[in-house]
Amino acid sequence: MKDLPLSKVYQLLEPGPVVLLTTARKGRINVMTMSWHTMVEFEPPLVACVVSSANYSFAALRATKECVIALPAVALARKIVGVGNCSGRNTDKFKRFGLTPAPAWRVAPPLIVECFANLECRVADTHLVNKYNLFVLEVLKAWIDPSQRNPKTIHHRGYGSFAVDGEIIKLKSRMR
Amino acid sequence: MKDLPLSKVYQLLEPGPVVLLTTARKGRINVMTMSWHTMVEFEPPLVACVVSSANYSFAALRATKECVIALPAVALARKIVGVGNCSGRNTDKFKRFGLTPAPAWRVAPPLIVECFANLECRVADTHLVNKYNLFVLEVLKAWIDPSQRNPKTIHHRGYGSFAVDGEIIKLKSRMR
Repeated sequence: MKDLPLSKVYQLLEPGPVVLLTTARKGRINVMTMSWHTMVEFEPPLVACVVSSANYSFAALRATKECVIALPAVALARKIVGVGNCSGRNTDKFKRFGLTPAPAWRVAPPLIVECFANLECRVADTHLVNKYNLFVLEVLKAWIDPSQRNPKTIHHRGYGSFAVDGEIIKLKSRMR
Repeated sequence: MKDLPLSKVYQLLEPGPVVLLTTARKGRINVMTMSWHTMVEFEPPLVACVVSSANYSFAALRATKECVIALPAVALARKIVGVGNCSGRNTDKFKRFGLTPAPAWRVAPPLIVECFANLECRVADTHLVNKYNLFVLEVLKAWIDPSQRNPKTIHHRGYGSFAVDGEIIKLKSRMR
């Protein structure tokens, strides 16, 4: 994994890919699938995400205030859905789905080796957690796997239907 | 435009498409391009979005607490970028880019006829506006244009580069 400048993190999350989110609490690591996230600020990168209080990851994220957002490419689609269809309450999802945890630098939750990028995050704001389960995260450190070239991400459309990244178009723009 | 059940709104926004956002204030309508949004709740549909205070739309959204989120397909890509590269301060963007406003039912800002879906929204929460420019919106009414079949959306990757929706894959899932 190679260092990714924090100024480029938004280019990974702004397109709206399905991501994985890892947590660690009391010696147990866990991973969930997440599509409800948005960039909030470019740099330092801030991300808002919704983690349902029905998810086992919710309590870990709220208590430890740390997570890793891992970006999987389409080759992992079956594992992404599998992770989203069971709970860390009664499943070691890393083992069950053959995902490899690796130590992060700044936080306790693990990176996921099979993902093409990993973002180490700390909870920056909890004002909307009680009402909406909405956390604001700051990305502290970002990693990219240069061996995965032009990874295609997937975008959930409901009930297991996903749009895979297709053609890339480039238009002259003043937008960052 | 046909009525879309509010329970299906998340299927439009969860995949992370670039959208247009319209506002109306003091007799002037405006439109901006937006990629920083996420679903927050299924039903009634709640959406969090970030509208920079540098954008002309910010003041209108904060003052009137109303907007429309319009979903454009890839055929509108050049207009989407054009809208994002100028300001309503000195431009009538509807006229300049040939976008057709149509009256909404529940809010003052207009629908956009060329878009395949339009979501009439009211600001539901402003707690994070001052700190992060983050608004929580409630979708009050949703419209879909059935004549646009299988619209492909676009996903911004920075500096005018966009991934167009490609292949649709379906996996057995218990996730809504």
